[in-house]
Amino acid sequence: MKLALIGAGRIGKVHAQAIHSHPDVTLAAVADHHQPAAQALAEQYGSRAVSVDDIFADSRIDAVLIASSTPTHAEYLERAARAGKAVLCEKPIALDLERTRDALQVLDDNPVVCALGFNRRHDPQLAALKQAIAQGRIGSLETLTIISRDPLPPPAEYVVESGGLFKDMMIHDLDMARWLLDEPIKSVFAVGSSIIDPAIGEAGDVDTAMVTLTTASGKLCQISNSRRACYGYDQRIEAFGSLGMLQAQNESDTRLRFTGEAGQVEEKPRWFFLERYAEAYRLEISDFVAAWKEGRPPLAGARDGLEALQLAEAAERSLREGRNILMDTLV
Amino acid sequence: MKLALIGAGRIGKVHAQAIHSHPDVTLAAVADHHQPAAQALAEQYGSRAVSVDDIFADSRIDAVLIASSTPTHAEYLERAARAGKAVLCEKPIALDLERTRDALQVLDDNPVVCALGFNRRHDPQLAALKQAIAQGRIGSLETLTIISRDPLPPPAEYVVESGGLFKDMMIHDLDMARWLLDEPIKSVFAVGSSIIDPAIGEAGDVDTAMVTLTTASGKLCQISNSRRACYGYDQRIEAFGSLGMLQAQNESDTRLRFTGEAGQVEEKPRWFFLERYAEAYRLEISDFVAAWKEGRPPLAGARDGLEALQLAEAAERSLREGRNILMDTLV
Amino acid sequence: MKLALIGAGRIGKVHAQAIHSHPDVTLAAVADHHQPAAQALAEQYGSRAVSVDDIFADSRIDAVLIASSTPTHAEYLERAARAGKAVLCEKPIALDLERTRDALQVLDDNPVVCALGFNRRHDPQLAALKQAIAQGRIGSLETLTIISRDPLPPPAEYVVESGGLFKDMMIHDLDMARWLLDEPIKSVFAVGSSIIDPAIGEAGDVDTAMVTLTTASGKLCQISNSRRACYGYDQRIEAFGSLGMLQAQNESDTRLRFTGEAGQVEEKPRWFFLERYAEAYRLEISDFVAAWKEGRPPLAGARDGLEALQLAEAAERSLREGRNILMDTLV
Amino acid sequence: MKLALIGAGRIGKVHAQAIHSHPDVTLAAVADHHQPAAQALAEQYGSRAVSVDDIFADSRIDAVLIASSTPTHAEYLERAARAGKAVLCEKPIALDLERTRDALQVLDDNPVVCALGFNRRHDPQLAALKQAIAQGRIGSLETLTIISRDPLPPPAEYVVESGGLFKDMMIHDLDMARWLLDEPIKSVFAVGSSIIDPAIGEAGDVDTAMVTLTTASGKLCQISNSRRACYGYDQRIEAFGSLGMLQAQNESDTRLRFTGEAGQVEEKPRWFFLERYAEAYRLEISDFVAAWKEGRPPLAGARDGLEALQLAEAAERSLREGRNILMDTLV
Repeated sequence: MKLALIGAGRIGKVHAQAIHSHPDVTLAAVADHHQPAAQALAEQYGSRAVSVDDIFADSRIDAVLIASSTPTHAEYLERAARAGKAVLCEKPIALDLERTRDALQVLDDNPVVCALGFNRRHDPQLAALKQAIAQGRIGSLETLTIISRDPLPPPAEYVVESGGLFKDMMIHDLDMARWLLDEPIKSVFAVGSSIIDPAIGEAGDVDTAMVTLTTASGKLCQISNSRRACYGYDQRIEAFGSLGMLQAQNESDTRLRFTGEAGQVEEKPRWFFLERYAEAYRLEISDFVAAWKEGRPPLAGARDGLEALQLAEAAERSLREGRNILMDTLV
Repeated sequence: MKLALIGAGRIGKVHAQAIHSHPDVTLAAVADHHQPAAQALAEQYGSRAVSVDDIFADSRIDAVLIASSTPTHAEYLERAARAGKAVLCEKPIALDLERTRDALQVLDDNPVVCALGFNRRHDPQLAALKQAIAQGRIGSLETLTIISRDPLPPPAEYVVESGGLFKDMMIHDLDMARWLLDEPIKSVFAVGSSIIDPAIGEAGDVDTAMVTLTTASGKLCQISNSRRACYGYDQRIEAFGSLGMLQAQNESDTRLRFTGEAGQVEEKPRWFFLERYAEAYRLEISDFVAAWKEGRPPLAGARDGLEALQLAEAAERSLREGRNILMDTLV
Repeated sequence: MKLALIGAGRIGKVHAQAIHSHPDVTLAAVADHHQPAAQALAEQYGSRAVSVDDIFADSRIDAVLIASSTPTHAEYLERAARAGKAVLCEKPIALDLERTRDALQVLDDNPVVCALGFNRRHDPQLAALKQAIAQGRIGSLETLTIISRDPLPPPAEYVVESGGLFKDMMIHDLDMARWLLDEPIKSVFAVGSSIIDPAIGEAGDVDTAMVTLTTASGKLCQISNSRRACYGYDQRIEAFGSLGMLQAQNESDTRLRFTGEAGQVEEKPRWFFLERYAEAYRLEISDFVAAWKEGRPPLAGARDGLEALQLAEAAERSLREGRNILMDTLV
Repeated sequence: MKLALIGAGRIGKVHAQAIHSHPDVTLAAVADHHQPAAQALAEQYGSRAVSVDDIFADSRIDAVLIASSTPTHAEYLERAARAGKAVLCEKPIALDLERTRDALQVLDDNPVVCALGFNRRHDPQLAALKQAIAQGRIGSLETLTIISRDPLPPPAEYVVESGGLFKDMMIHDLDMARWLLDEPIKSVFAVGSSIIDPAIGEAGDVDTAMVTLTTASGKLCQISNSRRACYGYDQRIEAFGSLGMLQAQNESDTRLRFTGEAGQVEEKPRWFFLERYAEAYRLEISDFVAAWKEGRPPLAGARDGLEALQLAEAAERSLREGRNILMDTLV
C-alpha cells in the first residue's frame, strides 16, 4: 500500500513510525500546512513532502491517513473518498453531527475503505477483553464500568476548540461502551463538575464527569472521567456478567516491584495515550492495510464516529438540562 | 456492660459470639419470638433466655442489641430508649421514612446511646480508607466509585418484604457514600434492570442497578449493584482525588496463589457478608461499648439510618420516574 | 479440657487468649517463676495462679501448655508425661540432640498426647498450601523455595542463648521443608554471613543464611533467612511441580491500595510472628484439643522437634566445615 | 552501521527484524551455511545473501552479528576481530574454557567493539532492577534469589551438544548473578536431579538444579532452575538489602484479569525467551550500535562470557564431586 500522510504534528509522527515499521506499507508522501514539518518527517523516513492537492491528484497513491487538525478532517475525508483512495482518519470526523453526516453521505456515494482512529479498539488488552466477552467467558454481559482519566487537564483554551470533555475525551469511552455492549444505547444521563481547574468551568466545560448508559435489553454502563490523575493515564474497563467478571487493568513500563518501609510498591501506569496505546497505533495501521487488501470493513469506521458523537451530544444535553436523555427521541 | 440480645437467628448468633469474645460485655439475656432458639443460644454462651418484656423491665440490663425481624426494630428501639437503655439496632429502623422519623423523635425525647448496624463502617479496610481520606492521602476527594455485588439473589418473595434492592442492599452503599463524601448529597439518579431473575422483576424489583450521586461542592459518585456475582461477595470502593486514588479491594481467605496452565490464580473473594465482615461485627460491638462508656456517639447512629433511607427512596423514585431527583426538593 | 499454662510472658499471653476463646477449654491454672506475672494473667482470664508443682500434682488438670523459658521445656515435658497429662510444648524441646532424645524416651515410656509448637503448620495459608500439594494440585512436587526474614535482629546476647540462627529461626523453615517435602532429607548444605550486625558475628553466629536440602527421590529445596527485613516479617514459600506452582504469600492488615506519584502502593507485610501467625496460635490450641479428644497425634509432635533439630545441627556443621552434609552419615 | 548477519535460523530472524527496525543500521548481508535460508531472509529485508568469506572480505561492512551454530562462534569471532569489524556474538563463545580464552586472546590482540549476547541485561525490567540497586534503592545488597524455568525440556540429544543445563541454561542466571552482585564470586555449590525426563539423566545431565553462590564480602545468592514449567517461561529475580527488596516479576501478554468460580485469574507468563525478551533483542542491537559509535564497551562483552562459563564449570564440578567449590582454587 502506497500511503500518504496528511499532518506531520505529534500524532502524525506516531503514525509515520507505525507506517515505516509495517512491511507492506510505503510512506509515499507527507503533507502539512506547515511545509517544513512535512519536509522533516518525510526526510526521516525516506519519503517526500508534497502539498495536500498533490496527494489527492496522485493516482499512484492508494490511501491517505488524515492526521491534520480537526476542522480539516471532514473535507479531506470527502476528497479522499471522491479520489477513490482508502482513508484512515483521526477522530473526530467533525465536532457537529450535521457535518459528520454530510461526510458519511459522501462516503456512501463514493465507497472506499474508511477507518476511523478509535485507537483503543486496537489495543491488545482491550481487544482481548472484547474477544473474551464475545467468546462467552463471562456468560451474558450485564454491566460495564469504564474509568478513564487523563494525567493532566488541557489548557482551558484547548478545551473549547476541542469540543469539550464529552466530544474530545469521553468519546473514546462512549465508543468502547458501544463496542463492548454491542447493542443500541437506549438512554444517556450525565453529571459533571469543574473541580480541577476553574478556568475550564469558566470556559463552559467540565473537568470531571460521570455518564450512565442503558441498552434496550437492560444492560447498564457507567463511565467516569477526570481530566487529571496525578499518577498518570488511568484506563480501566470492567465487564460483569452471569459467569464472572473481566477487568482490563492499567499497564506500566515494567513489573518491577519494590518493598520497603513505604509498603509494596509497583510502578505507576503509563503516563498518557502515546505510551499506553503505542502498540495500538501499530495495530491500527495493520488492520487498515488488511481491511484494504481483503476488502472488508476496518475495526472502526466512519459510522462509529457518528454514533459516538451522537452519544456525546446526548451527554452534553443531559448535563445541560439535568435530565435523562432517551436516544430514540433524538432527531 | 450487661447486654441483652433480642433475636437468636443467623445475625443474632453472629452478635452473640462477638459479645462473648469482648472482655467488657456480659451477654445478660437472650430473647426470641421462637423461644427454643433463645434457649439454645443462651445456653451456648452461659446466658439465660427471657421474654422481650423481661428485658425492658430489667433495670440491671444496660443495653439492648436488636437483631430481630425488621418490622419489630422501630418498636424495640423506642422501648429501649424509653427504658433508658443503650441500644445497638440492626438496620433498617423501618422501611418507611415516617416510621423511622417517629423512632428518631422518641430517641430525641429519650436520649440514650444508639448505634445502627451499618457494619461496613467497622470493617478494618473500609475504616482505613475513611481514615486515609480524612488524613488527606488523596488530597481533595473528587469522585467515588462503589461496586457492590451479592453472591446470590434472594428469593423473589424476600425481595418484597425486605424493601427491595435500594432499601435492602444498596442502602449500605448509600451509607458508605454519605460517610466518605462527607457532605450533603444534592441529587440522585438511578437506573435498574431485572436481568438475573425474572421473578424479581415480576415482584416489582430490580436485580441490577446503578446510581449516580452529586454533592453540593461538585463531588460525583457512582454505585453499581448486582444481586448475583458467581465468584462471591464483591465489595470494592475507589476514592479518587487531587493527589491520588485509594482502592478498597476484595478479601479472600488466604493469599495462596496457583500458577498453572490456566494462568495465575488467586482465591475468590469471601463468599458473603458473614465471611467478609466477620471482623466488622466484632468491632461494631467494641465501638458500641466504647461509645456507651465514653458517652460519645457511636460510629453510625439512628440519623444515619434515616439519611440513607432518604437516599434509597430518592433512588427508587428516580428509577420509577426516569429522572434525576434533587434532594432538596424532597419533603 | 482443663488446661494449665506454664509461662506468663509474651507467648504465654498469646496462648492464654487463644485458650480463653476456645469454647471447650478452661484455663485451669497459670504458673510462672515470676509469681506476679502468673497472678496478673490468671486474674485477666478468671483463672488462678499456682506453682508448677501444684500443676503436676493436680489430678483434675488434663493438660499442660509449656510456654516457659527454653531451658525448662524438656523437664516440664517429662513431668507432664509422667503425670499422664497431655502436653503442648513450645519449641524447642531442648537446644541439643541428646537432651531432646532423652525427653522423647520419657514420652515413649509414658505415652500422652504431645504437641510441639511449630505454629506455622496451623496457619490457614500454609495449611492450604500443604493440602493443595497433597491433593495433587501441582502434580509431583519437585522443588521448594522458602524465604523467611525477621523484621529485626535480636540482641547479640539473645543470639547465643537462643541457640543461634539455625536452631532458633531457621528451625521453623526446616520443619516446613520436612512437612511439605514429605520424605527423608538426604543432604544439607549451608552458607552464612554476618553482614547486618557485626555483634552477631562476634558472638559466633550468622545473621544471613542460605541452606540447600535434597531428598532421597531427588526433590530440591532452598531456604533463605535474614535477621532483618525493614518492611516486616517476610514469610513466603513456593512449591513447584510437574503441573504448576503454589505460592504462599505475605499477608498484610488490609488490602487497601494507594496509587499516587510514588506508584501503586499496597501495605507492608504484617510486622512479626505475633501479627502474622495470630490465627495459627488459635488453631494450634484447637488441634491440640481435638487430638486429645480423638486420641490422635497432633499436627506437630515431639519427634518433629527432634528431626528439625537434627537438620539445624547438620546446617551448623555444614557452615562450620564448608561442606555438604549427608544426613545418613550423622550418628 | 553496515551490519552483516551470519546465521538465518530462528535467532537470526529475530536479530534481522531488530536490525531492520533500528534507524541507524543497515542489514548489509546475510550468510548461512544453508544458502536458501540466507537468501529468503535477505530478500525479506531488502538485503543480499553472501558467503561467510564474502563478509569478512568486504571492507564496507562495519560489523558482524554471529547467530550461527555454537561450534562456529569462536572462529567467526576471531575472524571478525582480525578483519577489524565490530562483532555481536550470540553466547556462548565456546563450550570449553580453553577455546574461549583463545578467542579472548585474539580480541586482546585485535581490539574491536565486541558484544556478547547475554540478552537479559537488555531487558527493560532487569535493567531497571540493576539500575535501582545501583542507585541504592535497597541500600546494601545482601542476598539474591534467581528463579529461572524453561517451559519445556529440550530433546535429550540437544542437551548433550548444548553443553548441559549449567552451560546452556543456567549460564544466563550466572551472568545475572555476576552482574547484580557486582563483586567476585567466592564459592559455588550445586545440587541437581533428573526428575522430569529420564532421558536427560541417561544423557548425563540434570533437568532440575539449584546453585548457591557466595561473594568475598559475604553476599549470598541462590539460583533455582527447572527445564519444565507447564505455565511457561518463569523468569524472576529477587534482590534483598538493608533498605528493602526489589522483585523482577514475570510478564504476560496483557493484564486482562478474569474472576469467576475458579478464582481470580491473570494470564500465564509469556511462553519462552523469544516472547519474554523480544524487547531485549531490539535493545541489544541499540546498545551494540551505540557502543560502536561511542567507542565504549557494550553492556555485555566477551570477558563476561568467560566469567560465566567458569561459574558454570564450577557448578558442574560441584555437582559431580558433591562439594563446595572455591573459585580461587580453580586454575
